[in-house]
Amino acid sequence: MAPAAEYAGPRTSVAVLVGGVGGARFLQGVRELLPDADISAIVNVGDDVWMHGLRICPDLDTCMYTLGGGIDTERGWGRVGETWHAKEELAKYHAQPDWFGLGDRDIATHLVRSEMLRAGYPLSAVTEALCNRWQPGVKLLPATDDRCETHVVISEPENAGERRAIHFQEWWVRYRADVETHGFVTIGADQATPAPGVTEIIERADAILLAPSNPVVSIGAILAVPGIRGALRTTTAKVVGLSPVIDGKPLRGMADECLSVLGVETSAEAIGRHFGARSDTGILDGWLVHSTDTADVPGVEVRSVPLLMTDPAATAEMAREALDIAGVKP
Amino acid sequence: MAPAAEYAGPRTSVAVLVGGVGGARFLQGVRELLPDADISAIVNVGDDVWMHGLRICPDLDTCMYTLGGGIDTERGWGRVGETWHAKEELAKYHAQPDWFGLGDRDIATHLVRSEMLRAGYPLSAVTEALCNRWQPGVKLLPATDDRCETHVVISEPENAGERRAIHFQEWWVRYRADVETHGFVTIGADQATPAPGVTEIIERADAILLAPSNPVVSIGAILAVPGIRGALRTTTAKVVGLSPVIDGKPLRGMADECLSVLGVETSAEAIGRHFGARSDTGILDGWLVHSTDTADVPGVEVRSVPLLMTDPAATAEMAREALDIAGVKP
Repeated sequence: MAPAAEYAGPRTSVAVLVGGVGGARFLQGVRELLPDADISAIVNVGDDVWMHGLRICPDLDTCMYTLGGGIDTERGWGRVGETWHAKEELAKYHAQPDWFGLGDRDIATHLVRSEMLRAGYPLSAVTEALCNRWQPGVKLLPATDDRCETHVVISEPENAGERRAIHFQEWWVRYRADVETHGFVTIGADQATPAPGVTEIIERADAILLAPSNPVVSIGAILAVPGIRGALRTTTAKVVGLSPVIDGKPLRGMADECLSVLGVETSAEAIGRHFGARSDTGILDGWLVHSTDTADVPGVEVRSVPLLMTDPAATAEMAREALDIAGVKP
Repeated sequence: MAPAAEYAGPRTSVAVLVGGVGGARFLQGVRELLPDADISAIVNVGDDVWMHGLRICPDLDTCMYTLGGGIDTERGWGRVGETWHAKEELAKYHAQPDWFGLGDRDIATHLVRSEMLRAGYPLSAVTEALCNRWQPGVKLLPATDDRCETHVVISEPENAGERRAIHFQEWWVRYRADVETHGFVTIGADQATPAPGVTEIIERADAILLAPSNPVVSIGAILAVPGIRGALRTTTAKVVGLSPVIDGKPLRGMADECLSVLGVETSAEAIGRHFGARSDTGILDGWLVHSTDTADVPGVEVRSVPLLMTDPAATAEMAREALDIAGVKP
């Protein structure tokens, strides 16, 4: 006869602020470390965009596909076994934009989402419906149900350098950030509120982690939703971030290009200071940097540990260190 | 030195009322016969439907793809080289409807159309834009820019035979018309008007042909748009139809099932009488039936000629006979 299970107390609750590829991989590690915990991901929606009448949510989909086993692991985004026939045909119609990777399998996700949005469901409810299929094992919450998009002010190369604000996706995918850039603006931030549950989860979590995602256009775009920064500053839980930059180089994406627009150096220390200490006017209690890095962030506990997300087990160790600073033992 | 071209007079103008597969093939024949004429197709939109947030226009697309060289000639509808990945994924989301053949290449057409419709362009303008790519060589005009959809009153097999009106596509594709059927209703017909140019083209054409399309849900659905029947009755041009039924059997589709709902026999004669003579209360001046058929349609000139659309050349001969009744020589 098996012994009666001991009462384990309430389940550990962890909230993670995440962007796309790096965030999704980090969530895999947290899920690996804490299979029985309530893990909530507060996902960046600053990259979201309407294209061809479809609402595309790159970070939510990357998290959903990665955690649900549908991601193309080589590419890091989009569906495994993807084809591109609709995109080919859109190009033959000269439909704009023509620079975005819109896969045939992926389109199904966008069709379901767009139809539900048009029927009046908020993005958080749509995401829950899509996750019924993918069973990510992590609650995926958009940072906001409102349109709150990152746009980028550039000097247009085709038009005598005239200043124009373009959607982040155009800057990122079409221009590869290789264009004179003056700043980021978050369209809709003035009227946005956090999605249902987001501030409550931050308030009640045992620990809050910032994934090693782009500090400007992923974590920064989440913080641009009014109410989220305030919740992070007032929660009783500790907030611990992980550096996306190792040896002065971002592991993926174009954090470099984004940070330079803000005048922030691409280093673990500079990013930690950019987020700042909760004891000052910032949001961090702890900051993990890679073993080969050091950082001095006043008011913040800094630890150097391996930060290479080579597989979920290695990533779980990163999460373990972050949670240790937050006082949470798996 | 080549002789100077003689003045050929104004270009011949022919209007053709068409449905899907049969109509598209007939248009190929008319185009083959009259390469220099103004050919206008007035296309059925009764089958059009919103699915997954996409506006799907089966007959317009079949005509456009067939005349533009993009059709799957084996299947008769949809795109050659088609894949079905988005449809597979929609099924995994349990998205309804799951019985419709929505191809990946085809989706691009629906995305362009749906986005233009949502932006406020009428279907006729959208069709013109799509045809910029396909160059069908025939002006494709939706019968109406308004929603004017064929729905079907059935006894629901899953629900104790309760009567319900379903979209024609559901009746046709999902049930294969194999369900107790009580009648057709045209949703929106009370408020529909012909698309811009439709009545003018009928008024000014040198001849008007009814393609050998389904007499009920293709030609009949065009005639259900208020104003089109009247234009056919008052135009100075002659109106000549071609029977879609040979030896009591429809060549394609389910004309049989549609005619029986109306209590019309599936024969060339019965369909001719169903359309009726312009000299009476109908729309026909001439009626072509297959070589092996005969028909007595009071007030209508009937000819028996080969009506098998084996290739555009054979189909061109059918068009030649029809135009001959109308007094138009190629």
